[in-house]
Amino acid sequence: MTTLVTGGAGFVGMNLVEALLERGEDVVLCDGSVLPPAAERALKPYGKALAVLRGNILDPGFLQSLFSGRRVAQVVHCAAITSGPQREAREPAAIVDANLNGTIGVLEAARRHGVRRVVYVGSGAVYGESLFRLTRLQEESPVFPQTMYAITKHAAERICGRLRELWQIDVACVRLGTVIGPWERNTGARDNYGTHTQLASRAVRGETAVLTPNEVRRDWVYAKDVAAGLITLLEAGSPQHLTYNLSSGIEWETPVLRWCEMLKTAFAGFGYHVAVAGENPNVWYTDKDRGIMDTGRIARDLGYSPQYLRDAAYADFIDWIRRNQDFFIRPGT
Amino acid sequence: MTTLVTGGAGFVGMNLVEALLERGEDVVLCDGSVLPPAAERALKPYGKALAVLRGNILDPGFLQSLFSGRRVAQVVHCAAITSGPQREAREPAAIVDANLNGTIGVLEAARRHGVRRVVYVGSGAVYGESLFRLTRLQEESPVFPQTMYAITKHAAERICGRLRELWQIDVACVRLGTVIGPWERNTGARDNYGTHTQLASRAVRGETAVLTPNEVRRDWVYAKDVAAGLITLLEAGSPQHLTYNLSSGIEWETPVLRWCEMLKTAFAGFGYHVAVAGENPNVWYTDKDRGIMDTGRIARDLGYSPQYLRDAAYADFIDWIRRNQDFFIRPGT
Repeated sequence: MTTLVTGGAGFVGMNLVEALLERGEDVVLCDGSVLPPAAERALKPYGKALAVLRGNILDPGFLQSLFSGRRVAQVVHCAAITSGPQREAREPAAIVDANLNGTIGVLEAARRHGVRRVVYVGSGAVYGESLFRLTRLQEESPVFPQTMYAITKHAAERICGRLRELWQIDVACVRLGTVIGPWERNTGARDNYGTHTQLASRAVRGETAVLTPNEVRRDWVYAKDVAAGLITLLEAGSPQHLTYNLSSGIEWETPVLRWCEMLKTAFAGFGYHVAVAGENPNVWYTDKDRGIMDTGRIARDLGYSPQYLRDAAYADFIDWIRRNQDFFIRPGT
Repeated sequence: MTTLVTGGAGFVGMNLVEALLERGEDVVLCDGSVLPPAAERALKPYGKALAVLRGNILDPGFLQSLFSGRRVAQVVHCAAITSGPQREAREPAAIVDANLNGTIGVLEAARRHGVRRVVYVGSGAVYGESLFRLTRLQEESPVFPQTMYAITKHAAERICGRLRELWQIDVACVRLGTVIGPWERNTGARDNYGTHTQLASRAVRGETAVLTPNEVRRDWVYAKDVAAGLITLLEAGSPQHLTYNLSSGIEWETPVLRWCEMLKTAFAGFGYHVAVAGENPNVWYTDKDRGIMDTGRIARDLGYSPQYLRDAAYADFIDWIRRNQDFFIRPGT
């Protein structure tokens, strides 16, 4: 079984590619950016089970080349521009092209090549204002997407639903929670780093982190759990719904302080403290407190549950960081 | 005061252009299609107050030409592809381009040329499934846009909100109810005709309409009320909300039978009856029964209320049809 992973060199993509390869499957990884050295190292042992192709999915010739001569049976479409406000203000139409017309192109190619299922990787960002109004977010909760990223992720998900109907193709979507874990980096398509990665970089470099006084409340999800959830959805017989929340479903207690504690144990040179009066924090917290993404639907329909909650995720991530310090010191292009 | 109306030769666009010209304002009408003879006739008396430019808003040179040498103070962006399922299945990316990147281009041009306000003409179609689940649709009701049209209309509205914030431009949006009235036609960008226009065509041609047994329940809105609502929003000091429902806000009783009755009085050659057993209806009803679009917000914030309810709208429309029978016999290209 060959799986095509678009955006395969990105954060979620790399975790998924590794998980598929570990299961002995064949993978076609496509991405607009090159693999960082740590990824080259990690993927080398899989030899010919992996094909890496670099290019832009908006280029029809490149898109065609991903399928030709390979029996791509399923596709996970991760490729997207994860834009920050500067990029949104500068080139909103480029975000529409990549995130919507890119998705349409991938669905069209999947249809033409008789792919059995496409999984579209969407985002909990689509809930927008509801994240701050509601305590639990269910898939039918009202969406008020605010940013170009969230707006296009929502529209792409709905387009998957519409083309599924019109073209009679098999597509399912996830909305990811806030992911932490290996392989988060700027490939040129990701403008923001999560809190954990910022702190990991400081730990590896032996620097001191200055935290904001308030803790972040969030239902983080570990990248390996995301990869497992995507594989579950790829393999499910016939998912009942178009869209599934894919997150841990529970709030992690004092996640930042606990992360700092565990990093400190692993990296002696690392220091951290809460900013004192007049001091500026040097770690950026992703967002205000928000509601928990309810995972009842994915649990009921697909029997999925996360395996890595806070401390287990942190231990696994630290183990990975130790082995891949170069990723944080020179995180690729 | 010069107003640019994109999609100005279309259904809503033509009604708005006429209303603005009647108020003594200057209008730049742009559209991808040519004006039908009835429209040429209607607009001729306004002489130099009107500039008509034909082209595609996705062409940057054309977009620029709409503003150059004119003091465009405000823009109403009606241009969109109102797609049916065939077009959606055939060219979904073209709908994304026209309805989203077209909107971004117009907002960008408006910003560059210091336009005071842009009004984006969206659609109640964005509510999607909620139209059939809820009895009243408010602007904060959950949206589940189903079609490429509805999906892109929703995304465009959210993009207006985001670019308003990022670019500090003045944009407001309406979601139109089901519009009836003058100037509904296929300009190449509209795939579906409403019930009233189908019946009017048969009436003018002296044909017999065969109706389905069930009446349509719908909060129709008359095109002249839509034009008045758009002008109200253009002129409002500082609208409190991004989005306003623009519809009549009330259900019209037996709207199809009443329309047939009034058409029959005006056009003696017209006949109609409900399909008997084995007979196929020849009039297409736009949709299943749906909830009413609540107009409380536009009434409260802008003091807007519709002037043409069922019989007043029908009388005015029939008067227009009598004077423009050629529009129904040869409805342009």
